[in-house]
Amino acid sequence: MATVSLIEYEDASAEVREVFDDIRRVRKSDFINNFWKALAHHPETLKRTWESLKVVMAPGALDALQKEMLYIAVSIANNCDYCIHSHTASAFAKGMTEGQYQELLAVVAMAHQTNALSTGLKVPVDNAFLA
Amino acid sequence: MATVSLIEYEDASAEVREVFDDIRRVRKSDFINNFWKALAHHPETLKRTWESLKVVMAPGALDALQKEMLYIAVSIANNCDYCIHSHTASAFAKGMTEGQYQELLAVVAMAHQTNALSTGLKVPVDNAFLA
Amino acid sequence: MATVSLIEYEDASAEVREVFDDIRRVRKSDFINNFWKALAHHPETLKRTWESLKVVMAPGALDALQKEMLYIAVSIANNCDYCIHSHTASAFAKGMTEGQYQELLAVVAMAHQTNALSTGLKVPVDNAFLA
Amino acid sequence: MATVSLIEYEDASAEVREVFDDIRRVRKSDFINNFWKALAHHPETLKRTWESLKVVMAPGALDALQKEMLYIAVSIANNCDYCIHSHTASAFAKGMTEGQYQELLAVVAMAHQTNALSTGLKVPVDNAFLA
Amino acid sequence: MATVSLIEYEDASAEVREVFDDIRRVRKSDFINNFWKALAHHPETLKRTWESLKVVMAPGALDALQKEMLYIAVSIANNCDYCIHSHTASAFAKGMTEGQYQELLAVVAMAHQTNALSTGLKVPVDNAFLA
Amino acid sequence: MATVSLIEYEDASAEVREVFDDIRRVRKSDFINNFWKALAHHPETLKRTWESLKVVMAPGALDALQKEMLYIAVSIANNCDYCIHSHTASAFAKGMTEGQYQELLAVVAMAHQTNALSTGLKVPVDNAFLA
Repeated sequence: MATVSLIEYEDASAEVREVFDDIRRVRKSDFINNFWKALAHHPETLKRTWESLKVVMAPGALDALQKEMLYIAVSIANNCDYCIHSHTASAFAKGMTEGQYQELLAVVAMAHQTNALSTGLKVPVDNAFLA
Repeated sequence: MATVSLIEYEDASAEVREVFDDIRRVRKSDFINNFWKALAHHPETLKRTWESLKVVMAPGALDALQKEMLYIAVSIANNCDYCIHSHTASAFAKGMTEGQYQELLAVVAMAHQTNALSTGLKVPVDNAFLA
Repeated sequence: MATVSLIEYEDASAEVREVFDDIRRVRKSDFINNFWKALAHHPETLKRTWESLKVVMAPGALDALQKEMLYIAVSIANNCDYCIHSHTASAFAKGMTEGQYQELLAVVAMAHQTNALSTGLKVPVDNAFLA
Repeated sequence: MATVSLIEYEDASAEVREVFDDIRRVRKSDFINNFWKALAHHPETLKRTWESLKVVMAPGALDALQKEMLYIAVSIANNCDYCIHSHTASAFAKGMTEGQYQELLAVVAMAHQTNALSTGLKVPVDNAFLA
Repeated sequence: MATVSLIEYEDASAEVREVFDDIRRVRKSDFINNFWKALAHHPETLKRTWESLKVVMAPGALDALQKEMLYIAVSIANNCDYCIHSHTASAFAKGMTEGQYQELLAVVAMAHQTNALSTGLKVPVDNAFLA
Repeated sequence: MATVSLIEYEDASAEVREVFDDIRRVRKSDFINNFWKALAHHPETLKRTWESLKVVMAPGALDALQKEMLYIAVSIANNCDYCIHSHTASAFAKGMTEGQYQELLAVVAMAHQTNALSTGLKVPVDNAFLA
């Protein structure tokens, strides 16, 4: 249960609707997910977050799917329930195969294991990695 | 400064040398980084970790560079100093461009921001993401 | 579902009731929230935690609301479900306005983003910040 | 040691200098801290991050010092070395007293303790906190 | 709700059944918990994870219960819902007393508090701890 | 470098010296580690933290070494540099063997791996673990 209500398009201010319309336009879908409905209580944060996300997630040196997979990796490490679900769904929608998903999970989990070993042992960084 | 000494090849047991040799063979390089030298105090962990890593990081449905980038994303989220340095260096060695690196950082940072918003607002997962 | 049962006032030992009574007295409310009912299995931890919290959260150089907002910030960063809900409710009860809450969330989320950038880039601390 | 070089004003592109100039103007100081010099490799991220930070940290429903203290709380929870140093220095520069700093630390630490207890016991959220 | 379906023994491939059979044999119980059913989508990860876990959790210099208690401590710190429940149940099944559990929680919570203080203050490591 | 100076016994107030004396008495050693010297800026926090730690770390249902090992596990998960060093040193001083240390690291690292898998897959908690 959210700490705030979810604001539907019908009940939104003109300022919020403008962002919702842009989300629909960019994503080529009428669906507005709950994250944006929760942010709609603060149109400034809604607009700033959406504008940033739109720029950051646009295909560039990395393609859209690679970016979604990085997002999943971070969301797992941060244990963000909503984010894991939404970005896993989004990655599948962008063409992630079952095999890619399974390897992503294996890499993410392995990284947690070796991260813990490096951190526990306080392994000093090799000069070769600083050069 | 590590909590244990780093074991050099010359001082290593036969069991440890066997793993070090395999690392060199697979990576086509004589360089053994400090992580493995620190693990060498416990040959069982050294061997098990290397064998797992070898399997997990081998190119498959995701290529070697994509896997390194996921590793960086997790290492930043876990704030693992050694891991950030070693996997950033490793990704560049595997062909990551400066542009890819910058976008990776932008995605990882953006994910932390929206993760915090989702978590703070306790946004409920949309049914569409569960279906 | 908790890993332990919740102990109600009626079923509590004299030692636990004494703490519950003090919570009611200090908070000027009969309501005992689940956190304390769960801790009641270990009266020593219950008493020690409550005594510490009472001291730490009392108005001093920072007022009670500022302290609640810091508590929310930490609870979001730690992704503690119970803590986010209880301290958000508590901050509103202590007079947090909707506008303050929205700015708190924006600051917390922005901090996560720049934390990730600083950590990923391993930015060295400026001498000016150490002086 | 950073994963990238730090770009000084003298060596910066016109696009980067424009952001650096704005940082100096808003902060009324010639000092550019290392964080921005590291971001300067990617002018788009530099500009977007600065523009967001400027909006988020401007005094509003919360004043500038309250916002810096929230930033410190998050940076401690995220264990971000650079961020702890820079925002602690910044909060003192904005008038944080020694007494406020000590209480901030006490609250942040206490929150970590009760967060761990709530999480470990999986305490169910009281209905009163959801209403 | 999991991001993947749970694969029951009846519907599992021969490769997966072999691992499930080994889990049952080692644990002397027919019960296969959901974690393994979720991993069964990727037999390679299922097998590798189980083989590692079997080695790591076997009694050695630390006994089986001490290992379970360490697992709980990590799971609380990582805020892993499933892991807290499964390893708390497992520790009780291996003989953890109510008193041990309560002290474990107290230590884990105390560690979070002093961790936050050390991190916030950036306390320099004593030479005595490096020697 | 700490965000505060370290207060030596010679320069400490009577209130602080009283705590330092008790630390020495309980630990049967003249050594005061930096953590307490940093806390000495706020005698109330110093005293409260020490009193809590003394109670929590005293042998009870768990012995002193088991408690130190749990402290290490949490400190690794929290990536607390000072805490990893101080509690690893402390555990060795209390009789932790090299073999125990190596197994502790292996368990902690393995827990991070399976935590990440459980979290990423959002594995639902088995009813058996709730009963």
